[in-house]
Amino acid sequence: MKQEYKTFTAPDLEALQAICGTERVIPAEMIGEDYCHDELSGVHKRPDVLVRATSTEEVAAVMKYAAANHIPVTPRGSGTGLVGGSVALYGGIMIDLSLMNHFLELDEENMTLTLEPGVLLMDVSKYVEPAGLFYPPDPGEKTATIGGNINTNAGGMRAVKYGVTRDYIRGLEVVLPSGEIMQLGGKIVKNSSGYSLKDLMVGSEGTLGIVTKAVLRLLPLPKYKISLLVPFPDLPSAIKAVPTVIRASSIPTAVEFMEREVILAAEEFLARKFPDNTSDAYLLLTYDGASKEEVDLAWEEAAGICLQCGALDVFISNTQERNESIWAARGAFLEAIKASTTEMDECDVVVPRKHVAEFVLFSHALQEKHHIRIRSFGHAGDGNLHIYILRDDRTDEQWKKDLEAVFNDLYEKARELGGKVSGEHGIGYAKRPYLEESLSAEEKLLMSGIKKVFDPQNILNPGKLFS
Amino acid sequence: MKQEYKTFTAPDLEALQAICGTERVIPAEMIGEDYCHDELSGVHKRPDVLVRATSTEEVAAVMKYAAANHIPVTPRGSGTGLVGGSVALYGGIMIDLSLMNHFLELDEENMTLTLEPGVLLMDVSKYVEPAGLFYPPDPGEKTATIGGNINTNAGGMRAVKYGVTRDYIRGLEVVLPSGEIMQLGGKIVKNSSGYSLKDLMVGSEGTLGIVTKAVLRLLPLPKYKISLLVPFPDLPSAIKAVPTVIRASSIPTAVEFMEREVILAAEEFLARKFPDNTSDAYLLLTYDGASKEEVDLAWEEAAGICLQCGALDVFISNTQERNESIWAARGAFLEAIKASTTEMDECDVVVPRKHVAEFVLFSHALQEKHHIRIRSFGHAGDGNLHIYILRDDRTDEQWKKDLEAVFNDLYEKARELGGKVSGEHGIGYAKRPYLEESLSAEEKLLMSGIKKVFDPQNILNPGKLFS
Repeated sequence: MKQEYKTFTAPDLEALQAICGTERVIPAEMIGEDYCHDELSGVHKRPDVLVRATSTEEVAAVMKYAAANHIPVTPRGSGTGLVGGSVALYGGIMIDLSLMNHFLELDEENMTLTLEPGVLLMDVSKYVEPAGLFYPPDPGEKTATIGGNINTNAGGMRAVKYGVTRDYIRGLEVVLPSGEIMQLGGKIVKNSSGYSLKDLMVGSEGTLGIVTKAVLRLLPLPKYKISLLVPFPDLPSAIKAVPTVIRASSIPTAVEFMEREVILAAEEFLARKFPDNTSDAYLLLTYDGASKEEVDLAWEEAAGICLQCGALDVFISNTQERNESIWAARGAFLEAIKASTTEMDECDVVVPRKHVAEFVLFSHALQEKHHIRIRSFGHAGDGNLHIYILRDDRTDEQWKKDLEAVFNDLYEKARELGGKVSGEHGIGYAKRPYLEESLSAEEKLLMSGIKKVFDPQNILNPGKLFS
Repeated sequence: MKQEYKTFTAPDLEALQAICGTERVIPAEMIGEDYCHDELSGVHKRPDVLVRATSTEEVAAVMKYAAANHIPVTPRGSGTGLVGGSVALYGGIMIDLSLMNHFLELDEENMTLTLEPGVLLMDVSKYVEPAGLFYPPDPGEKTATIGGNINTNAGGMRAVKYGVTRDYIRGLEVVLPSGEIMQLGGKIVKNSSGYSLKDLMVGSEGTLGIVTKAVLRLLPLPKYKISLLVPFPDLPSAIKAVPTVIRASSIPTAVEFMEREVILAAEEFLARKFPDNTSDAYLLLTYDGASKEEVDLAWEEAAGICLQCGALDVFISNTQERNESIWAARGAFLEAIKASTTEMDECDVVVPRKHVAEFVLFSHALQEKHHIRIRSFGHAGDGNLHIYILRDDRTDEQWKKDLEAVFNDLYEKARELGGKVSGEHGIGYAKRPYLEESLSAEEKLLMSGIKKVFDPQNILNPGKLFS
């Protein structure tokens, strides 16, 4: 569908400057290159204007102006997305929410944190932990904003035990495409009062509304945690142990898998040794709890299960230093793989837990089939895999062709196993064709119908999710 | 809005009998009285036909026929609702899903249970516990169906620690108002692939689609649990202790509050003694975990906190017998209050946890203001209160007038405290005016827009949620 929008002109710029002042309304030619792309998707487009909003009222006024003038609006947090969700495909207004980065209220009695969407994920834990509180979602990209996390329903490492971002959103303030401000949910724990617009908003990738405030649910901070690094002779034996580990008495906080070649890349990238790199495949397990006894009981049972399932050893990581060396490596996987090639793209599928091994082995086999390097790591405990296809020295044309062929194979296999296109990174611009293939005709009709209810002019983040 | 539907005639009956056979397609005059109302709402209407479906294909074929002929359809499980959600307000077809009560697959590796919507809640735990698995949602009404639980996003006692039904729905099969069959989610743990239609369906009270299959998420069964019955001199001191208890190292599984007069009613109703009835107010706390050490640590800390907060004693309930006497009483509260009067209606508000005491005291004060008996109990840990207004010997007219006045006061107070109309029982028919008052103009527009996208003819469960 061809989009017809109003051409952005000098009077539009002046109108926006009248709303937000001149300093925070930046014309196209002065917009930094960073605002024209995201971390990975490859799509590039300069907005006509960048508005750095500082309040809900500003966002609402800008959105109202855009609605009255049929100008597309693209909301943006840190721009750490991987699928082009925050790129202004049709130009127009980019609303940068990164200045709306204030903590508004830590309510200890209700165990909620109210904040603005531009707060960085890494700052949330720093803010709540001194009060003995805990925000469980733990996506790998700590410089992402909470607003971005909400819009992709980000998952992260601790989803095995604690669930995903959706499970920690109690309330939202949203600016609708009309410019109206809407409050959803609140500090309440249960709600059965009409359709859950809040849950519809979570994961909608900025296409239904702009999140301008969120009420997060917090838990008591677990007092003890421990990580286990468990080497296995090969990947299938590592991953086969996972369902048994998860079925044990205590559910692990995180279950990551990693292969030797990714660990080596991380060691090189960080110039820092990993505790062990002699085995082909590893599981990284974490347990947390309110007492040492509870955590000890959990990891001892898990260690026994791993050894029964063929683990070569179990390294306990209960010191700050050892924990850091392991998690620093885990945190650097994406960057390390990126640094090892000229360009890459990723597949963020999620499959039922018991099919993880089959899927990863399938992706290995694609290396030979398509003569291309493929690296993967991911959340073995929740079936969400991050599979990276590396360009190396391919020409533009060859890269495009090979990438498409690999993606087609991967997404087809995921569908076959009852999986979905994206576990946590979203669809954005880059994964639209694969989402489209995966949805039934009914789902597509309902989703586009919902989009029209919220955004009849299709001015909010157009070109995302749907072609 | 006046609804205009096709009058149900003999040829319609024959057409439905051609789909499902004659035995399970029951004409109006042979429909039992039970199908004409629910447990509480007072609204009464006989469907034109009752179809007892046994498969998704039958539900789809019936729905297709209804769509082609503009006949309203009301889905129904056990009929245990309290707000008229399963009453056929406009006659037409009632689809009874209680025969679709089969367990389809217990997938231990993925920790999921796939079942039909007519399975009773009480049968789920019996089915999964022998495998060491656990379905956490624990609404009080155990004879409700899982389909009903999904449609109201039922909460129950264990929401404090484990969350609500929504948090345990991995996948759904749904028959749309068009008669098309749609699959949502699956066995996957994470999903960020377009709008979450699954989450929109949960809590939609049968107005967007008919759930014909569900994939439930299971957890490892906690091996140890213990309940504490904690007497306090009065209600405010009991409820004031709750946030501190929840903020302790381990989160309790359940935190219920109960007052002496409700306990006395339950004792009389059950002809069975409660362990203690000498205090004005009680907290009932439950802890569960993987080991005795973990649970002991948790309850000992909680007991200390309660005593510091003014508790008169702490009764440990670690025997089967004692547990049963407490939970039997808790389970009988609704019926006991009902038996103590001629008729009653209820308010199922949810408020932020720290406002529970204020809200309950407010409801006490309404007894004097309106010269009416009001009883309450509920989930102190999650702010979801069940407040019952008792008719006693009022005339029809007086009852209607007083009830409306009390409801108006209660819902206004809830709004003032940032609460919502329903925490877990839903809106159905009975609470529509209060939902309408509580929603913003934008929310109303979006919700009715969504209803139109799914059900443009307004034939599926019409007259519910919206007036």
